[in-house]
Amino acid sequence: MENRKENFSEWYNEIVDIAGLSDKRYPIKGMNVWMPYGLKAMQNIDGIIRKNVDPLDFQEVSFPVLITRDQLSVEFEHVKGFENEVYWVTRGGMEQLDVEMALRPTSEAAMYGMFSLWVRSHADLPLRIYQIVSVYRYETKHTRTFIRIREIHFFEAHTAHDTYEDAERQMDQYREIWKKISHDLCLPYIIDQRPDWDKFPGAMYTLAFDTVLPGGRSLQIGTIHQYGTNFSRNYDIKYLKDDGTHEYASQTTFGLSERLLAAVVGIHGDDQGLIFPPAVAPVQAVIVTIPSKSVDVLPYARSIFEEMKAAGIRTSLDTRDNYTPGFKYNEWEMKGVPLRLEIGEKEVSGNRVTISVRTGGKRRQIPRSEIAGTVKSLLDEVAEKLRANADAHFRSLSRKYSSLEEMRGAQGLALAGWCGSKECSSVIEEKLELGTLGFNRDSDETVKCIVCGKDGKIAAFSRSY
Amino acid sequence: MENRKENFSEWYNEIVDIAGLSDKRYPIKGMNVWMPYGLKAMQNIDGIIRKNVDPLDFQEVSFPVLITRDQLSVEFEHVKGFENEVYWVTRGGMEQLDVEMALRPTSEAAMYGMFSLWVRSHADLPLRIYQIVSVYRYETKHTRTFIRIREIHFFEAHTAHDTYEDAERQMDQYREIWKKISHDLCLPYIIDQRPDWDKFPGAMYTLAFDTVLPGGRSLQIGTIHQYGTNFSRNYDIKYLKDDGTHEYASQTTFGLSERLLAAVVGIHGDDQGLIFPPAVAPVQAVIVTIPSKSVDVLPYARSIFEEMKAAGIRTSLDTRDNYTPGFKYNEWEMKGVPLRLEIGEKEVSGNRVTISVRTGGKRRQIPRSEIAGTVKSLLDEVAEKLRANADAHFRSLSRKYSSLEEMRGAQGLALAGWCGSKECSSVIEEKLELGTLGFNRDSDETVKCIVCGKDGKIAAFSRSY
Repeated sequence: MENRKENFSEWYNEIVDIAGLSDKRYPIKGMNVWMPYGLKAMQNIDGIIRKNVDPLDFQEVSFPVLITRDQLSVEFEHVKGFENEVYWVTRGGMEQLDVEMALRPTSEAAMYGMFSLWVRSHADLPLRIYQIVSVYRYETKHTRTFIRIREIHFFEAHTAHDTYEDAERQMDQYREIWKKISHDLCLPYIIDQRPDWDKFPGAMYTLAFDTVLPGGRSLQIGTIHQYGTNFSRNYDIKYLKDDGTHEYASQTTFGLSERLLAAVVGIHGDDQGLIFPPAVAPVQAVIVTIPSKSVDVLPYARSIFEEMKAAGIRTSLDTRDNYTPGFKYNEWEMKGVPLRLEIGEKEVSGNRVTISVRTGGKRRQIPRSEIAGTVKSLLDEVAEKLRANADAHFRSLSRKYSSLEEMRGAQGLALAGWCGSKECSSVIEEKLELGTLGFNRDSDETVKCIVCGKDGKIAAFSRSY
Repeated sequence: MENRKENFSEWYNEIVDIAGLSDKRYPIKGMNVWMPYGLKAMQNIDGIIRKNVDPLDFQEVSFPVLITRDQLSVEFEHVKGFENEVYWVTRGGMEQLDVEMALRPTSEAAMYGMFSLWVRSHADLPLRIYQIVSVYRYETKHTRTFIRIREIHFFEAHTAHDTYEDAERQMDQYREIWKKISHDLCLPYIIDQRPDWDKFPGAMYTLAFDTVLPGGRSLQIGTIHQYGTNFSRNYDIKYLKDDGTHEYASQTTFGLSERLLAAVVGIHGDDQGLIFPPAVAPVQAVIVTIPSKSVDVLPYARSIFEEMKAAGIRTSLDTRDNYTPGFKYNEWEMKGVPLRLEIGEKEVSGNRVTISVRTGGKRRQIPRSEIAGTVKSLLDEVAEKLRANADAHFRSLSRKYSSLEEMRGAQGLALAGWCGSKECSSVIEEKLELGTLGFNRDSDETVKCIVCGKDGKIAAFSRSY
């Protein structure tokens, strides 16, 4: 298979295909088929998201996929931001529709008319909902599986609050939620405040979680938006205050997508194929039997398989005898399964298993009585190792620069002082072909703008997906 | 609230609304918002489906929502069957699309082109996949939540087999799967073979699972279809045989939808509101605290709440003190929660709880040490009771008739001899306003057609949704 560091793009396309994550031979460009193995990984990511938002009083809902032009037009800036990339339904059966309807590009326009019915008084706030659905973009650029596509698996949380301060607290809570999700996915990131000209249409400000893939381009893997009352004024979302007057609600959103899977694939994989973080892995451990002429290894393998499942470990049992053990090892390594348990004659007679860890290290002999416990701690070790590797990779692709000359040809995330002006951003774009991700939210020091020399703050620049 | 037996239709609309299952104020007719409580119930039903198909080597996938006109047109009879009820996407952004695309009404046309790539040899068969997605119908008739709508939550399984016999075995397996699902949902049904003029477009034959709602109209809640090679010939799904020739695959499908929730709501509810079968209930047991001046009941209630959750029971804790216990009891009864645990001063001092069962019977005093065990067996009792009630209701609405005169004004499922001809079916339709559901698959006896007197078999007739 392709060399991941040299030819990341080709490696990525190949692994998505041969590991059975997605089939892009569907006859509509940018709309792919989620294959069983890829869908399971995505569902595990969805599960991690739900696990983190459900206890915080987020309620899951599901809104219709269609949004009328009237609904979309309520917030002018918002519809303007999307009108070039929306799919329009114009006919039902043989009839031309009176009102054209869009496939949701995101759900503000679908949801907020309903919010105005649901929010009446203080008692209805904060309102916190989310949905996990497909959204649609008529993407004209080059498409790429999980990264730039026309049908996007999407998590969107929407909230309404009585005050701006409470909405700001929500923004902080999103960052805490994200910290936990990215921990399970073993993904490093920085938080950037998008420049005003690149924020979400209708938002007061947008914070993005940016990571970087081996090819050296950054990937936005999550965003949170502060809407203030920009939407609530237009969609009439208001509540009755104690003094009898009405107040518009302040709103926020949090968006994640299948790009999370793209990042997991791209950042953790190696030249042998995928490596899944245990929390995401469709199969956390595979038991491969090595046929023997003297002993029937199957009953022993099956009983360990049952033990592992009972211990809550997602386990597969590979008893195929039309492939060599070596072929099967390679296949499961390619598919990114964190742990492999080998069971042959020696393991049966010794009442043990041999365990091989996808992130490297010596194979180990484990007595049968210790298998479940050892597997669990090895899974934790795999996660730690992936985090350490990913952090090292992330640091190697993040560098601070103090002059434009030095920054020329920069790979990954280039950090430099910036005054915040579009002019200076354009200079960096034109001279260095690096886009502006925005001010880095983790840094507050005052530094000189790398272009104009005025006072500024640290910002991130990169080529990005 | 409305009387369920007298005014079923009004009762149904009201309970769907006030129980928080669905909000139909969304501005597109027939497209409703899944509210948190309704969505959880539906997700539990999805979970029951997955639990039953996953162990049988069905792989979950997810196909794009859009299908080009070319894909749809491959099977002429199929597209003809849907063309009057498909939504068409004709524009992307500002551009007219070269190829119009349909929102999937069902996924044969989306999937089978891919099947032709996936199926090469015997080793690829049987192929068994499913997806749980939304499908779309431009429904022009009167819409009704969960029953007749334009965006439908849908389970569709699709298989391909080397022989027709193996496809027939799949049809039998579907019936076994359905038996288990309907057991968990406590739903009675009959299996009818749809008349040829009413089978699924492109199918060789269609078997439907029909139940009946309190209003006396039948509701189709599931279908399985034998396609034979009707689709595989057109979509070129074939495999290489040992003798070097190619053979077209035989195919089947199995479809279920949110009508399952409609049936659960309609069949099990009563004049107090919903009654959820425990397997479907978003909340299986609610703990309601009764405030006391002498004792703080909260710590006791909370520890029982934690115990229940640890025992795997979906439990809510209602500690609201701005409502009376009576108000809270009514609310949870209306929402169909199978069991209510009351905790007040007496329960704390007696180290016990009072349990009330939604399906009736005396309230019981249960010692603390026995709570989890008792709750589990009471949940089983609730399921049994619902099955018994539903069966009795089903029998009361199913009757055999031996003359047209007698059958006039029949409510529910009217069973009678039928020769299978469209002419006799039309007579029943015109004279009695009863549609033909088809031959009842559980009966094989030869009986005279109720219209023409020729030899026939037992068939079911009804007004239906």
